[in-house]
Amino acid sequence: MAKKNAFYAQSGGVTAVINASACGVIEAARKHKDKIGKVYAGRNGIIGALTEDLIDTSRESAKAIAALRHTPSGAFGSCRYKLKGLEENQAQYERLIEVFKAHNIGYFFYNGGGDSADTCLKVSQLADKMGYPIQAIHVPKTVDNDLPITDCCPGFGSVAKYVAVSVREASFDVASMAKTSTKVFVVEVMGRHAGWIAAAGGLASDKNCELPIIILFPEIPFDQKKFLAKVDAMVKQHGYCSVVVSEGVHGADGKFLSDQGLRDAFGHAQLGGAAPVIANMVKEALGYKFHWAVADYLQRAARHIASKTDVEQAYALGKSAVKLALQGHNAVMPAIMRTSDQPYKWEIGIAPLKAVANVEKKMPRNFISRDGYGITGKCRAYLAPLIKGEDYPPYKDGLPQYVRLKNTAVKKKLKEFKLQ
Amino acid sequence: MAKKNAFYAQSGGVTAVINASACGVIEAARKHKDKIGKVYAGRNGIIGALTEDLIDTSRESAKAIAALRHTPSGAFGSCRYKLKGLEENQAQYERLIEVFKAHNIGYFFYNGGGDSADTCLKVSQLADKMGYPIQAIHVPKTVDNDLPITDCCPGFGSVAKYVAVSVREASFDVASMAKTSTKVFVVEVMGRHAGWIAAAGGLASDKNCELPIIILFPEIPFDQKKFLAKVDAMVKQHGYCSVVVSEGVHGADGKFLSDQGLRDAFGHAQLGGAAPVIANMVKEALGYKFHWAVADYLQRAARHIASKTDVEQAYALGKSAVKLALQGHNAVMPAIMRTSDQPYKWEIGIAPLKAVANVEKKMPRNFISRDGYGITGKCRAYLAPLIKGEDYPPYKDGLPQYVRLKNTAVKKKLKEFKLQ
Repeated sequence: MAKKNAFYAQSGGVTAVINASACGVIEAARKHKDKIGKVYAGRNGIIGALTEDLIDTSRESAKAIAALRHTPSGAFGSCRYKLKGLEENQAQYERLIEVFKAHNIGYFFYNGGGDSADTCLKVSQLADKMGYPIQAIHVPKTVDNDLPITDCCPGFGSVAKYVAVSVREASFDVASMAKTSTKVFVVEVMGRHAGWIAAAGGLASDKNCELPIIILFPEIPFDQKKFLAKVDAMVKQHGYCSVVVSEGVHGADGKFLSDQGLRDAFGHAQLGGAAPVIANMVKEALGYKFHWAVADYLQRAARHIASKTDVEQAYALGKSAVKLALQGHNAVMPAIMRTSDQPYKWEIGIAPLKAVANVEKKMPRNFISRDGYGITGKCRAYLAPLIKGEDYPPYKDGLPQYVRLKNTAVKKKLKEFKLQ
Repeated sequence: MAKKNAFYAQSGGVTAVINASACGVIEAARKHKDKIGKVYAGRNGIIGALTEDLIDTSRESAKAIAALRHTPSGAFGSCRYKLKGLEENQAQYERLIEVFKAHNIGYFFYNGGGDSADTCLKVSQLADKMGYPIQAIHVPKTVDNDLPITDCCPGFGSVAKYVAVSVREASFDVASMAKTSTKVFVVEVMGRHAGWIAAAGGLASDKNCELPIIILFPEIPFDQKKFLAKVDAMVKQHGYCSVVVSEGVHGADGKFLSDQGLRDAFGHAQLGGAAPVIANMVKEALGYKFHWAVADYLQRAARHIASKTDVEQAYALGKSAVKLALQGHNAVMPAIMRTSDQPYKWEIGIAPLKAVANVEKKMPRNFISRDGYGITGKCRAYLAPLIKGEDYPPYKDGLPQYVRLKNTAVKKKLKEFKLQ
């Protein structure tokens, strides 16, 4: 096998552990210098490949690369950019081949979710369809946990842990305040299409620490009357309750709860969240005092409370991607295969990208309780291992020490390419 | 000194470390069984005293009390309830004396902020004005950090750490996304009257890790044009920026930014946060993609990322309150006295409650940068030690193990008292 360089890039929404996968890819590649030359990272995902904006990761020290394992965000920049089909935009693919040739790139590692798996699949076809020898391996990543085949997606376990811990903490808080003040606390979490993250709020309550928590899933059409009755019953029984609402919650008409046609004093449309809508609804109908929070980026960036399981899997998948490449694979993704719930055991399998790209894994209905507001034992058995273990970053003066790489540019060899 | 029982209660908004103070009070009292009988906790603050709803803390194991040190929220319930003046509602005070007499209470420990210091001061006057021998000691607590005399307030350091860590993490996230997506991230933090918590967002950026952060303080009237110019300049220079907005930010007219007269489709008023208002403003004027978060209770309940300094001080103040009581003090509060910035050193002093009750400590103007959007070196020197050190709670199966006490009620001896 002639020695080729590798291309690695990050795509889509970043997570607390996507850099742990980068760390896995780069450290594994460095151990196979006989087969893999340099690892060039794309600055801002696939855009870096198209614009020949490559980062020479060999200029980073072993220490800096190791520190990626505990650094949230995307160290090389990410992008929201999907390649069109070969037929629709052949120029893009010709450009990719031009860049890959110019920099002797034979391995393509793309770290992202469903859309990115599609991009990776398209690149993998350069070999067959355009005769350029490349092996494209997808490294899974998405807080949405909606990729098929893999048991879970790196990034999700850490968000799940953040949500479970935060909901437990906030529920304790509300319980203290309920006598004279706040009785209902509403927190909005990510998950526009699937309720995986919202479900993690259910872990806050367990048999050793029961808490009154209502979950609003995007999978269950929102029924205002039924919901308000549930809140009222919870408050009457426990004195308070917490509501975990997925950003994707919508009514039977498919309209997002967060899209309430809010107008400011001048009639401008205002983009709100689902949490304030729910909170106001409770106040108007039941008169309970409330507080609400929207976690947004805080949840997916929260490396300080990352799940150890998640970090280990993110790293292992990066490492495995290199292994698969060296074994000669193309158009595949290393995937987490769960072999046991208790004790939790997993190994790494291989998923063909054709079965991954653009396929969304929804929450099974039997993961959601009959009334639609909680999680079942099955769901708990699935989720619980994913938040297990702590993996604290190093601190200095009270702040986590996250690495910022030098990100030295590789000298350009080609003419400029205009992105469309 | 005849052996008397002690009363302890929690008041106002709870924090990540108020239970550490409770732990300090109870553990110290247990070490002086010759002088202090039992510690009775008020269920839901002073309301527990008025309604004779007392909790017998002697029924809790040493292990359970020790676990309070790492448990957020108020273990005995808190309240928002301020005693009226003696002249206005003598019946209330007579009732307190009746309850204290019935349960042989000679020590009164009240754990709260400025309003609670006022309640504590009024109770301390029972001795002089109504002839009931009691020693009232206030234990400081407030995330707002606005009590005078004490260098800082327990609860603040942990919120400050949460905000500094979260803003650093989210800023890394936005930096990764900025090329094709989010360029401005807005996070709303607590602090209706003072910008202490917002200021902590400034710690996210330091000389080893510079980040483009704009802080909106309640102390600085909001100037929309100037703010938008600042955001635009930051984004043009760095590609992105983070905005930390205090919930108390208001315009020159005193109107809260969060109070925008929002109406839903039916014309109902909607309570929004300041963060979505700021985010929409940026979008409308500059066209930048944004994300926004509202931390709300998550920030003050976040025991998982508590400051070690804060936990130690909260515990020490609880312990010192007992010491002051045993020394015969009345109408005082143990206070943190800083003796050195670097290395950070502190000791415990005594503050007279008369000088504490109802006095608000604002951010000094020289803690805020000249342009009004950042913190000065002076502010940094003040804040930095307060977030120092981590003090992780114990975890099991990925979740923090917070204690819930038995909270066994003391048998009532008196007739019911109707709260007004």
